[in-house]
Amino acid sequence: MSEFTVGIVLFEGAEELDWAGPWEVFTMAAMGRDDLAVVTIAQTAEPVRCAKGLRVLPDHSFEDCPKLDLVLVPGGQGSRSEAKNEIFLQWLGEVAPQCQWVTSVCTGSLLLHAAGLVAGKRITTHWAYVPTLRELADEAEVLEKVRYVCDGNLVTAAGVSAGIDMSLWLVGQIFCVERARETQRFMEYDPEPPYGAEV
Amino acid sequence: MSEFTVGIVLFEGAEELDWAGPWEVFTMAAMGRDDLAVVTIAQTAEPVRCAKGLRVLPDHSFEDCPKLDLVLVPGGQGSRSEAKNEIFLQWLGEVAPQCQWVTSVCTGSLLLHAAGLVAGKRITTHWAYVPTLRELADEAEVLEKVRYVCDGNLVTAAGVSAGIDMSLWLVGQIFCVERARETQRFMEYDPEPPYGAEV
Repeated sequence: MSEFTVGIVLFEGAEELDWAGPWEVFTMAAMGRDDLAVVTIAQTAEPVRCAKGLRVLPDHSFEDCPKLDLVLVPGGQGSRSEAKNEIFLQWLGEVAPQCQWVTSVCTGSLLLHAAGLVAGKRITTHWAYVPTLRELADEAEVLEKVRYVCDGNLVTAAGVSAGIDMSLWLVGQIFCVERARETQRFMEYDPEPPYGAEV
Repeated sequence: MSEFTVGIVLFEGAEELDWAGPWEVFTMAAMGRDDLAVVTIAQTAEPVRCAKGLRVLPDHSFEDCPKLDLVLVPGGQGSRSEAKNEIFLQWLGEVAPQCQWVTSVCTGSLLLHAAGLVAGKRITTHWAYVPTLRELADEAEVLEKVRYVCDGNLVTAAGVSAGIDMSLWLVGQIFCVERARETQRFMEYDPEPPYGAEV
């Protein structure tokens, strides 16, 4: 197959693991192969300061972004101002219809809503933002207590770490399940939360 | 309590999730509190290019690094050359004895070995590097099929994603279990690998 390009969007205040988890999954799935490229994209080429202060240099700006097959929008504190950023919303609104897969992690689904991409779709978000998303996005059905929701080519994940599960699932759908399992094995993703789940 | 400072070491070729997982855990545990600081540290202030190509600007160089209470050393392809980097090994050898906790993720334990920090200790690493570490670090006991190993104040995690579990466990030890569970809840860390474990 020709090269499949995953574009991970960065913006000021994007939550680090929202995008770094999927980055690890897709770049690990790309190891030793030439059919998958993974790039970060931000509005400009300047360093991006994430939600917890990590500073990252994006691979591309909106202007020199390659054609994407999958776009991933993270969430985080910064999604509040990004939801009012017309330049970002216009870019996303133009890029998403050209992608095979349109995806988000955490409150990234609020940005998909702001860009007009969730009408009639089943979607999800971080558990703490389910009421907010329900109020904002009455054109969509907001599910809760799920790791990720796939509706057509739109896949939205729950909070932060759920992007890892979603991305592994996507590797299985884009390529094959065996490749997703291999990726999981090299990430040693056999999670054992140490103190059990909070009740 | 006075401020507890976590220092996450970055170097060329460090595996992204090895350090980004712990970064998310510790910075999430620090949210809305003033008793925990998390910083990234590299040899110089220049951008660091990680194993899969992500470029990060470190918060501190070795020269202006604050006093650390916990040092975390990631692994990745870059650990091979870092194990021969005398400047790094000398810095780590000086900093580690002043820390309450000395930790690694993935092949970061090979760097703890190279800095002379694992003699007589039980340690672990990424499953694929267990034989290598056993051969190199015959002064230590290398365990396998564990997410992380704590021996005194030395805590070493298995590959890549295991750093998340280790860091949550450390939050519970440094502060309290309830705070670790709260951190886990805000990260929505109820992992569900999508295709089951590889057999």
